[in-house]
Amino acid sequence: MTVDYQAKYADNVSERSKNRFINTFYSFDIPEGIVKHANPISLGGGTPNEGFFPVESIHLNLIDEPFQHLSYEKKSPLTNKTDINVKEQIHELTNAASTYRYTENPAEEVSIARGFQYGETDGFPQIKKFARDLIEETNKPAYNDWDVIVANGSGDSLHKVADLFVDKGSTVLVEDFTFTPFNTGVANLGGVNIPVKINFKNVDNDPDFDYGVDVAFLEDLLDNWGADEAHYKGLSKPKSFYCIPTGQNPTGVTQSQEKRKQVYAICEKHNIIIIEDDPYGYIVLPKYSKGGANPYASPDFSIEKYKKEFLRPSYLQIDTSGRVIRLETFSKLFAPGLRLGFIVANKYLIQRIFVHTALSTRQPSGVSQLVFNSIVKQWGGVNGWIKWASKIAKHYTERRDVLLTELYDTEAYKKGLFSIVEPDAGMFIILFVNFDKIITDPKKWDNAFTQMKYLSLKYGVDVVYGNKMASNLDKDFSLEKSNFLRITIAAANDNAQLVEAAKRLSDTFIEFFEKLEAGEFNAALDAE
Amino acid sequence: MTVDYQAKYADNVSERSKNRFINTFYSFDIPEGIVKHANPISLGGGTPNEGFFPVESIHLNLIDEPFQHLSYEKKSPLTNKTDINVKEQIHELTNAASTYRYTENPAEEVSIARGFQYGETDGFPQIKKFARDLIEETNKPAYNDWDVIVANGSGDSLHKVADLFVDKGSTVLVEDFTFTPFNTGVANLGGVNIPVKINFKNVDNDPDFDYGVDVAFLEDLLDNWGADEAHYKGLSKPKSFYCIPTGQNPTGVTQSQEKRKQVYAICEKHNIIIIEDDPYGYIVLPKYSKGGANPYASPDFSIEKYKKEFLRPSYLQIDTSGRVIRLETFSKLFAPGLRLGFIVANKYLIQRIFVHTALSTRQPSGVSQLVFNSIVKQWGGVNGWIKWASKIAKHYTERRDVLLTELYDTEAYKKGLFSIVEPDAGMFIILFVNFDKIITDPKKWDNAFTQMKYLSLKYGVDVVYGNKMASNLDKDFSLEKSNFLRITIAAANDNAQLVEAAKRLSDTFIEFFEKLEAGEFNAALDAE
Repeated sequence: MTVDYQAKYADNVSERSKNRFINTFYSFDIPEGIVKHANPISLGGGTPNEGFFPVESIHLNLIDEPFQHLSYEKKSPLTNKTDINVKEQIHELTNAASTYRYTENPAEEVSIARGFQYGETDGFPQIKKFARDLIEETNKPAYNDWDVIVANGSGDSLHKVADLFVDKGSTVLVEDFTFTPFNTGVANLGGVNIPVKINFKNVDNDPDFDYGVDVAFLEDLLDNWGADEAHYKGLSKPKSFYCIPTGQNPTGVTQSQEKRKQVYAICEKHNIIIIEDDPYGYIVLPKYSKGGANPYASPDFSIEKYKKEFLRPSYLQIDTSGRVIRLETFSKLFAPGLRLGFIVANKYLIQRIFVHTALSTRQPSGVSQLVFNSIVKQWGGVNGWIKWASKIAKHYTERRDVLLTELYDTEAYKKGLFSIVEPDAGMFIILFVNFDKIITDPKKWDNAFTQMKYLSLKYGVDVVYGNKMASNLDKDFSLEKSNFLRITIAAANDNAQLVEAAKRLSDTFIEFFEKLEAGEFNAALDAE
Repeated sequence: MTVDYQAKYADNVSERSKNRFINTFYSFDIPEGIVKHANPISLGGGTPNEGFFPVESIHLNLIDEPFQHLSYEKKSPLTNKTDINVKEQIHELTNAASTYRYTENPAEEVSIARGFQYGETDGFPQIKKFARDLIEETNKPAYNDWDVIVANGSGDSLHKVADLFVDKGSTVLVEDFTFTPFNTGVANLGGVNIPVKINFKNVDNDPDFDYGVDVAFLEDLLDNWGADEAHYKGLSKPKSFYCIPTGQNPTGVTQSQEKRKQVYAICEKHNIIIIEDDPYGYIVLPKYSKGGANPYASPDFSIEKYKKEFLRPSYLQIDTSGRVIRLETFSKLFAPGLRLGFIVANKYLIQRIFVHTALSTRQPSGVSQLVFNSIVKQWGGVNGWIKWASKIAKHYTERRDVLLTELYDTEAYKKGLFSIVEPDAGMFIILFVNFDKIITDPKKWDNAFTQMKYLSLKYGVDVVYGNKMASNLDKDFSLEKSNFLRITIAAANDNAQLVEAAKRLSDTFIEFFEKLEAGEFNAALDAE
């Protein structure tokens, strides 16, 4: 049975998106029976012949493992402080991905003649197939006629998805702490972000903590929508919910499968589309234990095990109605500069994004697609990619372990100045700063963080302040848990930097609390 | 003196663009005097360390001349019918552009660590500098404080520029035959395209023909705007004018400098922004003469001569007020798959496009920018690029000469079935089909072209029908010159294909006119 997703979800889609149209100056309806030449010559579209492209071949030297260059024998004074004589070293690499002007295998390879040419609006077929195969391997949807579109990275995807659901006056559910650039996009379209309470303040690291959406809150919000001021009287009912259920940003924690089923059921009841943003889901961080082994380095680790036991299931796996729109990106596992990612959803939603793309970005970079495809093919396709993802996750796990071990060992931690919420996926860790017993009015916490920021500049450690990632700090349920920092294990050059960063953080906290307790911040805390 | 372009042009800019805003969750105002560590460690943004990027080096083998592979000695059964044993051949190329994880020359080179990372919203500084230098070399604006932004190809630029000027109900001046995807973009934003009559039907190839905007038409249109139905009574006055003054699409012809001065003066008077789209301007096609030499192959050809005598000046060169927004692309001279181009305008307009970019595409592909920069650097920078452009133009000139010679020699031409407007830049040639004496009602020409399309499918030659590229065929001044085809010299594999295409076109015209004169199309021409 084919489901009519347009009929089912047209009410969820913005008027702007529904009304968008494309025209081409070269389209004709060709009736049946018209005789066609077997080898037509094009004097039509302004497509340069590939003979004009100046590149004959591309050779990409690959490493087998992230940070392989740190162990090169020959080093140069250059680069990243750890460096290498790259030109010399490079020829010792045995793993090269090559692409030529033409290919004998056009189904799998993107040649230069193809990749440097105008390409399909929704991505080259090779990349679309990769995306489909990856989803089949890791997060097969619970319905059949889903589709994919390749996008220019998740920034582009988030913009197009906000555009898909938001007219002036539309409301969108968002987690109460989240990747707020999405919220800014919604606001720019005239939409209103409605925060949904999420639970993450597990400072005791209770293994049974119920991370993520507060289900009772969400039920009450939607069941009683419009009943009173607290339930947004006068605003239209939300039609979409933006969330990051795995390795959430900023909190670093992951919703249980049971929780997802509950949230999905509520969204079914109220006809809400779930926008599942998952930039970090493949970076699974196994449970931390001090001095514990890295499970990715275990002899019994395998890709099959990674897929079945490590990876957490997407909302797609419980999506029987085509109500989930999932965003993946190649930025975090491969390289942000590719500006490549993809979107999975029902055919109607993908088709509306297709039209938006045809009118704006036209297509993702063909050169990025060629480079990506060439490398993934060299790795052995989808399972090679998944293997690479597990190598990335191995390194993130090691980094997380190094940083947590150091943080637990700091003087500031031992003094109780901060608490740690251990992350289970992604690249972020949050630290609650325990100044709430001293600064009892949470409205002053933003001023406190400003003072902490100045100290962190002195000690030389850059962090993100959690309150800046709140969807709406006027909500008490957000304000009262806004006293945390988000730190990342992604950017540091090596473990030594993480060790040093922990020390600098500790120094920052210690001086902050000394000055706080001495009353030195009193005027600053009271500032408007 | 600094001009306040915001004050000067805010009324030209759409409300959507003016109101667009960005927020970041990591911004703080840092007061003076705050002590900063000399070597801060970032635990802030979710930017993966470059050690996670799997590529150690990139090597691009370059050709010295377009279509160089056609003359390789060793050929394989592969590719484009002419092919080559690429893997063998490639090592004979001496011209390779290499990029490594790190560089000792970060001011000029985009390393992998940089190019694969998140980058600047408006493009890497190296590409911005290239764009600035190119404009300085070829089309220096007549004012000083202009700016550039790198975009994802001209499709992206056109979208962002339409967004910049069009609210619901806005009017935009467009040439009456043009690259209509821009018009579709305007319509999707709720704007109204207002056709400006342009002159191009120079079927006698009069050397003094006054190509381009009909100045009297434009003056009357704007001086009497709103006076009556013909002058769009009830519609708001246009604030921008989209045009392709050099190698116009579809017509292939170029406006004189004198004409540009007249148009600029009118736009000054009525405060209209000139959107100058110039994807083909570097492909200058010198005056055709049968059997004549290719001036690009002449011994006295030089890059200095190309810049000074061949290239036609942009509107920028007469822009004293910062009212021109110029769009360039690397698609036609290098490769469309890069999805790279740039926009030149005053700082205020560039800043509004910057904000749009920050909220949508975020940045052009870093990999595309790296590849482009690596190759241009290998060519010797801006003047190396201009040299490459002249090589492309040389090949287009040869192709144009081959096709015109063949077309003039066809039976159909000798019978007077079509006329040729010789192009002077770009990749397009238009042919007027002389059925207007037989089908005297131009409203039937679209049906005539449909019949011609069917025949062209049989003969195997694909063309674009000029009437499909009209801004508004309800205007008599457009309808009465809509009986032309647009053909391109860009797509063919080689000269032999162009020769064959001319023959096929001739066959198509001959059968078309035979059937037309025999009355076989009578019913089809009368169809609604």
